[in-house]
Amino acid sequence: MAFVVLRQSMSTMQCVLVASADACVSTQMVKFATALSKESIVDIEGVVSLPKEPLKATTQQVEIQVRKIYCINRATPTLPINLEDAARSEAEFGKAEQAGEKLVRVGQDTRLNYRAIDLRTPSNQAVFRIQCQVENKFREYLLSKDFVGIRTPKLIAGSSEGGAAVFKLLYNGQPACLAQSPQLYKQMAICGGFERVFEVGPVFRAENSNTHRHLCEFVGLDAEMEIKEHYFEVCDIIDGLFVSIFKHLTTNCKKELETINGQYPFEPLKYLEKTLKLTYEEGIQMLKEAGTEIEPMGDLNTEAEKKLGQLVREKYGTDFFILYRYPLAVRPFYTMPCYDNPAYSNSFDVFIRGKL
Amino acid sequence: MAFVVLRQSMSTMQCVLVASADACVSTQMVKFATALSKESIVDIEGVVSLPKEPLKATTQQVEIQVRKIYCINRATPTLPINLEDAARSEAEFGKAEQAGEKLVRVGQDTRLNYRAIDLRTPSNQAVFRIQCQVENKFREYLLSKDFVGIRTPKLIAGSSEGGAAVFKLLYNGQPACLAQSPQLYKQMAICGGFERVFEVGPVFRAENSNTHRHLCEFVGLDAEMEIKEHYFEVCDIIDGLFVSIFKHLTTNCKKELETINGQYPFEPLKYLEKTLKLTYEEGIQMLKEAGTEIEPMGDLNTEAEKKLGQLVREKYGTDFFILYRYPLAVRPFYTMPCYDNPAYSNSFDVFIRGKL
Repeated sequence: MAFVVLRQSMSTMQCVLVASADACVSTQMVKFATALSKESIVDIEGVVSLPKEPLKATTQQVEIQVRKIYCINRATPTLPINLEDAARSEAEFGKAEQAGEKLVRVGQDTRLNYRAIDLRTPSNQAVFRIQCQVENKFREYLLSKDFVGIRTPKLIAGSSEGGAAVFKLLYNGQPACLAQSPQLYKQMAICGGFERVFEVGPVFRAENSNTHRHLCEFVGLDAEMEIKEHYFEVCDIIDGLFVSIFKHLTTNCKKELETINGQYPFEPLKYLEKTLKLTYEEGIQMLKEAGTEIEPMGDLNTEAEKKLGQLVREKYGTDFFILYRYPLAVRPFYTMPCYDNPAYSNSFDVFIRGKL
Repeated sequence: MAFVVLRQSMSTMQCVLVASADACVSTQMVKFATALSKESIVDIEGVVSLPKEPLKATTQQVEIQVRKIYCINRATPTLPINLEDAARSEAEFGKAEQAGEKLVRVGQDTRLNYRAIDLRTPSNQAVFRIQCQVENKFREYLLSKDFVGIRTPKLIAGSSEGGAAVFKLLYNGQPACLAQSPQLYKQMAICGGFERVFEVGPVFRAENSNTHRHLCEFVGLDAEMEIKEHYFEVCDIIDGLFVSIFKHLTTNCKKELETINGQYPFEPLKYLEKTLKLTYEEGIQMLKEAGTEIEPMGDLNTEAEKKLGQLVREKYGTDFFILYRYPLAVRPFYTMPCYDNPAYSNSFDVFIRGKL
């Protein structure tokens, strides 16, 4: 038996109070507690005990028999977002509709306007925690392979790639722009003798584009390494890196993945212990056999990439694979031609369900 | 005995060749190698062996008896920076001058114009590797204390603090600015239920200022946490965090610290296992006893802070300490007054040799 003081928001609290209502909570205390608005912050003092029957609605198999309850900070009675509404899945909406019940939906604008409240939904909590773990594992894996983490400038004098759409600003009266990529600086670090470097940091792209693959600001996980003998050294690092992240999430973020799956259902990712590598020619051949003709020296469009992803999943049981040896014609000028056939190049792309 | 193939830049190579010249390197090979310009990239094939006598100029106690040497990439014969010049300490310059010898100095502009070469100096290599370790330990310690790493927007609609000097730009035709601090977003995360968060990321300050404490762009190591009972919870985290970073660097970056010390001599940092905490009143008293009168309810200026740092070092043997319970009058309006004396506040500052 342990005596505890807990600080909780009321949404979590309610179950606790109900569970222990039969023990030593006075009627006044229940009245006081139920009158508190949701998301109020309370301190409770109580005795930790094992319930007579196993608790069903929670993973925690102890309960607190409340002795005292203090309200630290009372929330506005009507909040712009009700967390229950914000946490529902499409399936729940469908079921309610069939039962003739109308449930409140929380739109994206409301969520963004009241971000701090929306962050309290279990799936948002889970998304942020998983993001943190992805970065942790990314760093941990690369550090174990002798990479050095660097931090490169984001305010720069010229555009870092092509010169296309960059965010421009004045730096002390002089024209400057925001880095579209740490590419140049990573390469300087390699020439500077670091051999292997990585950076996790913001990337800025000013394209006025509205595809689901475009963001004006995002966090890039970037790595750069010397090739000693063959570009497969890079493929091997990428292979090991992704597999280690997949494994880490599957093992250590089980609860978070289940939470997200509850609101936004998804298929678990399939991957192999040793990542599948296909040549571009093999990929084209698989598509051809399935009835999708591709110009053998041309590029894959988004549709063909998605189709190939499906075919690979069916044949090899993996959502994650590497396609290599692309035609030289569809790669940038600085890609090296293959030593045995200059029509192909020392290049690769990484695919997760269609395209990464 | 092991046979190796090594890829090295010539500056490292030269010692290797000299060391093994007596073994099985032909005269032609020595001629070929010494004719190679510095910083050329070479592959060498050879036999790893133990030298008869211990090597003095290096920490590596094996040598390679070179059998073959290939030049992969020949550097320009005259580089804008000679690494030997760029790696000298003031002491070496002084000694040479006394001996009537004139050594070449590499100016800061040249270093920055040819950054990739300057990065190859042992101290720059060490600085970058230590920086990476500081971030690693910062993350590791906070993660072990249940902090969640977050990534907040850098392109924002309004200024994040005060409204002072921010970098302004247009975001899709609308006025925007670069984040001066992740403060607001960290607080949103706390209100959003994360309890403890941190971020390592770029911070932008547009002040046209030229002090050694000001940079227009730097990497901020930021943390934010809920206080459950008392603000000393925060002091304890900061205490543990800094001490763990100090320990980690002392133990794991010995070589890097020695390298930097060789070119830019410094005193090793003194710190205590449990960080010293002094009240503001105690600090004032120490200064008074040493002859520096401070207005008891006023603020410490830079000079007084430095002086206090010296006094603390002499008395307590530490360069790192926390000063707490500042007068309320010199703290921002949102600082909480002390429960026992509203003239003082629940506040603190962290000092490393003067000021952090």
